[in-house]
Amino acid sequence: MAAKTETIELSVDAFDTDYKRQLTWETLGVGILKCAEAHASRRGFGIYNVNGENHTWVLARLVIELNNTPKVYDEYKISTWVESIYRIFSNRCFSITGSDGTPYGYARSTWSLISYSSRKALDLNDLKGMMSEYVSPEIECPITDYSGARLGGNAQQVMTYKVKYSDIDLNGHTNSMKYMEHLRDLFTLDYYSKNRLRRVELQYIRESFYDDVLLFYMQETREKTFDVEIRKTDKSSGTEKEVPVLRSRLCFE
Amino acid sequence: MAAKTETIELSVDAFDTDYKRQLTWETLGVGILKCAEAHASRRGFGIYNVNGENHTWVLARLVIELNNTPKVYDEYKISTWVESIYRIFSNRCFSITGSDGTPYGYARSTWSLISYSSRKALDLNDLKGMMSEYVSPEIECPITDYSGARLGGNAQQVMTYKVKYSDIDLNGHTNSMKYMEHLRDLFTLDYYSKNRLRRVELQYIRESFYDDVLLFYMQETREKTFDVEIRKTDKSSGTEKEVPVLRSRLCFE
Repeated sequence: MAAKTETIELSVDAFDTDYKRQLTWETLGVGILKCAEAHASRRGFGIYNVNGENHTWVLARLVIELNNTPKVYDEYKISTWVESIYRIFSNRCFSITGSDGTPYGYARSTWSLISYSSRKALDLNDLKGMMSEYVSPEIECPITDYSGARLGGNAQQVMTYKVKYSDIDLNGHTNSMKYMEHLRDLFTLDYYSKNRLRRVELQYIRESFYDDVLLFYMQETREKTFDVEIRKTDKSSGTEKEVPVLRSRLCFE
Repeated sequence: MAAKTETIELSVDAFDTDYKRQLTWETLGVGILKCAEAHASRRGFGIYNVNGENHTWVLARLVIELNNTPKVYDEYKISTWVESIYRIFSNRCFSITGSDGTPYGYARSTWSLISYSSRKALDLNDLKGMMSEYVSPEIECPITDYSGARLGGNAQQVMTYKVKYSDIDLNGHTNSMKYMEHLRDLFTLDYYSKNRLRRVELQYIRESFYDDVLLFYMQETREKTFDVEIRKTDKSSGTEKEVPVLRSRLCFE
């Protein structure tokens, strides 16, 4: 049996930093996804290994919290483990630590395993025989769970964005980390100069595709805490209505 | 003396591909820049090693040509060498090859070494003692040189883009590979379905900064060859005028 945790080692390239010489959250997010993929595939429940090639892990929620942001040329490690399995969802946690073991922060994510063809989620109890030996609730992930963005009637539409070629990944939909980039672009350089992003919550609700127009609604629900809902116009029912694509909470300090 | 060429080994991650499961040109571009940095710094003429910390290499031109585009999970290598040095410019070439040595393509770039404070370019003759032993014109780089985008009066303004937080890198200006992303976004998914991008030329003329509005002018100068000029409005002289930021040629097949 492989170890319960999988660890990958990374370093902050100059090309992956923002103007403050800090690792971008998109690059960190990609590292987190890569680490998850490595953990699952090396233990027999990766993207290609479940029920032939017909199923893939889909990210439903992701929370990342950093007490300190890695800077250019810093080396860091991402470790991941499965925290729990329940029906169609599995929780996976991550630690992000410096080369000397000091934690930068943690992440917690929720995944489901969907069929490529039917897009339906598999009951993970069917897989428990394979995954359950790796479930490790004893490993501490000391960040609060997804809290849920809740926009009131005062939410302002702050941006519209038409999905471009570069947003679309090999699954044919908007890349999960491209949303992170667009969300972070809701704030000015001046705001980043005065505040540090500490925590991002992402809840993926619905896919978006090339040429979709995304509507960004935002509200500051607590001081330096911003709830965002990305919506798109759904025309499938004959009448146009706005439907949610993603909900997010961004916490600065 | 170190070898004349420096080689880095890479693989195409799922997160670095487009909807055709092909390596994005931005990611390839970052690999090219990383390889250049590794070559220079390991031979004593990298960003931090010339005249203290006061100078940095700045990319003036980049041409990338791919006869075949690496696909998801492919392994590939980038090798680089100095082709020539002349006054304030140095030419550096690259080969991009598969793990079995088959070339995907090549790149050629032109750099100058500028002062952090004065922004003036150093005469590279002053450095020749350090760099000249690595100049390797004998290594073949079988792609044509920068040919130069030339827009006529028929060029259409096809996009405006306001520079965002995520465009700005640790040098405080728009990241060189973000331009590549914006240029590639000038074409539709449908166009990419029918055509393959074979060659991109980039000429960096002027920096752009946060909140600058970039104006994209484009013209199909030959069949499947598009010349683009990115301009911005300069107000420094008291009157507003459009000045070039970048010129590019994109060749499809």
